[in-house]
This record gives sequence, C-alpha cells and structure tokens, in this order.
Amino acid sequence: MKKKETETSVTGKKKEVLANLTDFGKKLYDQMNQGNFPWVKMPSRSIENIFYNPEIRQYVLGEKSVRRSARNIRHIKPFSQLVWAAYFADELSQNRKTSTLRDVYYSAQAYDVAFKDQPESNAIITDLETVVGYAREDFNVFPEERSAIFGDLTIEYTVPGYEGKQYNLTSHPDGVMIGPALTSAEFVKTTADIVIAIEKGGLFTRFIEEEVHRKYNALLILTAGQAPRATRQFIHRLNKELELPVYIFTDGDPWGMHIAMVIISGSANAAHLRDLTTPDAKWSGVWATDIVDYKLPSDELTQIDVKRLLELQKDTRYEGVLWQREIKQFLKIGKKAEQEAFSRYGLTYIVDKYLPAKLKETG
Amino acid sequence: MKKKETETSVTGKKKEVLANLTDFGKKLYDQMNQGNFPWVKMPSRSIENIFYNPEIRQYVLGEKSVRRSARNIRHIKPFSQLVWAAYFADELSQNRKTSTLRDVYYSAQAYDVAFKDQPESNAIITDLETVVGYAREDFNVFPEERSAIFGDLTIEYTVPGYEGKQYNLTSHPDGVMIGPALTSAEFVKTTADIVIAIEKGGLFTRFIEEEVHRKYNALLILTAGQAPRATRQFIHRLNKELELPVYIFTDGDPWGMHIAMVIISGSANAAHLRDLTTPDAKWSGVWATDIVDYKLPSDELTQIDVKRLLELQKDTRYEGVLWQREIKQFLKIGKKAEQEAFSRYGLTYIVDKYLPAKLKETG
Repeated sequence: MKKKETETSVTGKKKEVLANLTDFGKKLYDQMNQGNFPWVKMPSRSIENIFYNPEIRQYVLGEKSVRRSARNIRHIKPFSQLVWAAYFADELSQNRKTSTLRDVYYSAQAYDVAFKDQPESNAIITDLETVVGYAREDFNVFPEERSAIFGDLTIEYTVPGYEGKQYNLTSHPDGVMIGPALTSAEFVKTTADIVIAIEKGGLFTRFIEEEVHRKYNALLILTAGQAPRATRQFIHRLNKELELPVYIFTDGDPWGMHIAMVIISGSANAAHLRDLTTPDAKWSGVWATDIVDYKLPSDELTQIDVKRLLELQKDTRYEGVLWQREIKQFLKIGKKAEQEAFSRYGLTYIVDKYLPAKLKETG
Repeated sequence: MKKKETETSVTGKKKEVLANLTDFGKKLYDQMNQGNFPWVKMPSRSIENIFYNPEIRQYVLGEKSVRRSARNIRHIKPFSQLVWAAYFADELSQNRKTSTLRDVYYSAQAYDVAFKDQPESNAIITDLETVVGYAREDFNVFPEERSAIFGDLTIEYTVPGYEGKQYNLTSHPDGVMIGPALTSAEFVKTTADIVIAIEKGGLFTRFIEEEVHRKYNALLILTAGQAPRATRQFIHRLNKELELPVYIFTDGDPWGMHIAMVIISGSANAAHLRDLTTPDAKWSGVWATDIVDYKLPSDELTQIDVKRLLELQKDTRYEGVLWQREIKQFLKIGKKAEQEAFSRYGLTYIVDKYLPAKLKETG
C-alpha cells in the first residue's frame, strides 16, 4: 500500500472543520465586542461567478463575494439562519451525531429558527459549506442514499463505539454500505491496485461473484445510479490517499455518461468545494462505440435522450476528445445500451472479455 | 434465541427448488417419451382468479388454471420461453450464480430465445415462480435494490467462498447490505427480542447511533422506501424462524402506510407465493393521529395523496380498525408528516419518547 498523504487524514480534517466553525463564531463575537453589527463575507455562488477551471478540471467560484450583515434588515433572517446552522453543525460534530438535510430543516424548529421550506434550509447549509470550506458531510450532514464497496481494504473506524476497530471490506459478500461510519474511517491497508465503480446493483454482485476484486486487485464500488456525494468523496480519497486509478462503468446512454462525469468533474452546485471530484478517473464504458463494436442489444434513443446529448455536447466538462466522439456516435447510431446487454454473450462475458479489454484501452 | 423451525431452512429450501425444477423437466420428458406434445398446467394469475384470504391475510390464487401445450401453435412461444427460463434458473442455482430480471432478458439472447421486451421475460419468470412454487430469489434472480440491517444476529453464509463463515450483523455500523449472500444465509444466534423496520436512511443511522438495537434488543431494518422483495422475505424469516415480532415505522402519509402494508400483507402480484408476507407485523407510525397528538410539523395532502387514500380505503387489505381509523383521520386533517418531523423536539426525541410509546401502544 502506498503511503497515506497524512497520518490522520480523517481526524485531522474533523479538527479543522471544528476549528473553522469556532473561528466563524469568534469573528462574530469580536465584531460585536468592537461595537459593530456582526457580518460575514463569502464567495458568491451566483451563476455568473461559477467558472470551469481546466487546470484542476472542475467548477470553481470567481472573485465576487457577498457580504451579509445583521445591520441590513433584509439580511437579518438569512444571517441568523446561517449562525444557527453553524451552531447546529458544531453540536453535531462535537457530539459525533449525524443528520440529513431533511433533519436540519425540522431541527431548526426545536430552536425556534424558522425556515420557509426545505430549499431555504438547504441553501443555508450550502452557505455554511462556503464559510467553513468543507462539504456538509464533514460537519455530519449526510445524504439519505447509501451506496456500497467491496474489496481488500482494511479500514479503522472513528465513530463512537467502534473507535480503533479495524474492518476488512471483503467481510460481507453483498458489499459494505458507504455511510457515515465508513466515510469517516481511516484507511489502514490494501492490496488493491485499482478502483472500479459500477452503476448497477446486479452487476456489482456479478463482479463480486466472479471475483473481479481478486482477479484485477480491485476495489469495487456500487454507485447505485448517480453516486451520492459521500461516495464521490470516498472515491476521491481512494484516488488521492491510496493513489489508486479509478475506472467507471455505466450504462451506455447520456445518463450513464453523466454519472461518470459527475464523479470525475463534479457539478456547478459544488463549485465552492474541492474534495468531491476525481479528475483522473476514466469513463471506461459502455460507450456508444462499444454498442457497435460488441454488437450489443440496444434501444432507440428517446427524444429526451437526444436533448440531453445535445446539452452535454456544449457542456464545458465534455470538451475532451473521448466525450465529443462518443456523443457524436450516440447521435449517429441513435441507440443506447445497458450494462446488462453483455449477458447476450453469457453472464460472465462482461467480466472475462469486456472488462480486461476496456481496462487496457482506458488504462 | 428461539429454536429455528428446521435445522437447515435455507439449504433445505434450495434443494427443494432444484428438485422442483428437475421435476418440471422430467415431466416434459415423460410426456414426450409417451409420444405426447409436452404441456404444463399452472394456476391462473388473471385478475378474476386472485382473492384475498382473510385467514392467512394475503392474496391467493383461486381454482382456475391454465394449460400451456407445445401442441397449440399460439402456446409454442411462451411454452418454450418457460422451458428455457427453467433451464436458466437451474443453471444459476447449480452454479450458485445470481442474476436480475434485466439479466434474464438479455441472457435469453445468448440461447437464441427471443423475448419481445422485458415485460415479456418478467412475466415468464413469474410463470416459473408459479410452476416451481417459490419466489424468483429462491432460484437466484434478485432485485437491483439493496436495503440494510443492523443488530445482534449472527448468520452463517452459504455462498461460494464464504460457506460456513459466521458474521455478526453489528460488525459494520453503517448497517449490513441485504443482498443475495445475506438472504441465503442461515440464522445462528441472536439476542434480539424484536425487529424494527424503518423507511428512511437518515433515521436508520440515527437509530444505530442512539443504540436502539441495544436499548430495545432490536434488529433494525432499513427498507429504503418500498422494501425490495428479498427484504420482505428476510423480514418474514426473522418473524417465522426466530419468532420475533415486527414493528414498522414509515412516513405519515398514504405511501408510508402502504410500505407497511406490503410488508404485512403483500401484493396481488405475489398471490402465487407464500413467503413474502408477515401478517403479524405492526404498522407503528407515523399515524395521522400522531400528527395531531404530537403536534408534528406537517404538509398539506396533495390531490394525489387524497386519491390514493380513497383507493386504500376500499382496499380489502385495509379493512382493519386501525387502518380505517387512520385513513379517515388523514382525510379529516388533510395533512401528512415525515418521520424526521420529530426532530422539531430535538434529534433524539423520536428514540427517547416516541419509539417506546409506540412500541407499547402497538406491542
């Protein structure tokens, strides 16, 4: 196993998040002690301040910033909502309890803080991400969805009741859930050389049954459709801390293509964050050219598929040669194919023939 | 732990499934050896042959049957599709490989068996369930979706590479995925007294963090919305083999109510199967009356919600006093509430106050 970036990546980060939250609070106190209305300045997340940065291959925020002050009557509400959110995030982190966006919305009522609706509380949590400089998962606000991983990686938990316990991710052959406990675990050791992310549950199970993890020294990840943010962050860590190359296998259609792209280059919504993308990850299939080369059973593209392809064609993240070629090919053949389509050559063809060919091609 | 029903419930069942598949094949050979066109007779699954049986509290098939014969030119296609499906199921089971409905559709092409589309192949798999007398999961055709479980139950795997290995379901604090490997495991021992099924992922994590499994000697199950069939079968086993009472907690709306009902009484689609329901399971909340009693933050019922409630009101499965009372109450107050709404009283209120009150009320 390659050396980890830092000895305690997770606990180190948790401490930094807490320090940043405390800093935020201190600043407000200092401002008030100096006889001023408290205020906060943060980068603007409005659309004209979001740019694609080709160097780090993700969206970033520009120079524009917004200032929110308790002095401004129109700011008082979002300002105090933000302060409450920081307080709540600090409470969660200190007590090592987890929560969801939905929970945050309702929890506010326990403090007599009013949010009009959940979109309003979601936006404040995103503001807090901007202020703290970390993703909401880092202050214990997690998504509902769970994905999974399987393969020879030993982790060490940091959650209450399990601190110091080690666990190997081959322990349960259905795959191990990627939830708050796994996300906050330290990496201890691995024999893996690569990471393979897979869109579909059935195929993930097939890969485990056919021992892809052993044959290719791979960690297998089930994204279960669009990968939850916690999973994208986990893939980022596997790539960065363990220096493992990442290959992504999705359905051969614009939606599968975009599942891969969001793992690789993230979304404009997360332009204020850094640890959610894996720019060196490869989309390894199912490509439009695979549909032709492998004579796959396919379906006609729908109007919605075509519309989506035309959008992606103009999307700055899709400027690369591979992406443009595949979009063109999809439009040309007017077809799409699912990962399971390889079963027409027998259940193990995808593992025995397609997988090694594509790993070589995109490796 | 209570005594298990049989010493080898899972392996015993697998053997019976294989025996039934072999029987089916033998019958066809015998028919042909006697100089007849092969044929099969099975209970009709048409709507007029589906009845609710109040005694076993689930839908069952009536006396009508259909006969499919290779002699009848209109039967030749579905008949040979069924024979192929039986062959494929036998292959899967013999080789202990798993598959999905989607896979079955594409796999047929490897054998030059034509299905018009996936609904057609799905229907043939349901026919095969009827012929074999077991759910498709029992011949290794699994759903895509995965749910999870957490709590003190030790299981023993029967899947290749893990045979005889024991695993405790508190090993991973994010919860353990309910996939083919767990579904086909034997129960070894447990200290649990009850099963608590929960609709939402965030709440499932909260219950683990707050140690509900320890405080209430409970196995916690995440249904993740509508429980996948494999999970409903697993709940059935926990209830039957371990004699554990089951309590179900969902959102307080017609959709949550129906998640509970499908675990309890199943669906008309599965009238030909027996092991998917848990008639003694209780829907413990969130009830419409809870919304009032606990003064929960709530949303207005939509037109679609109301339409659904009126449908359920006439549904034979909803004849019980509790269901009728709650449907009436939903319609009267015109409100619905999510499980997370309890967070208005603090994150642990649902565990500290609501849960024990409801377990007592419905226990």
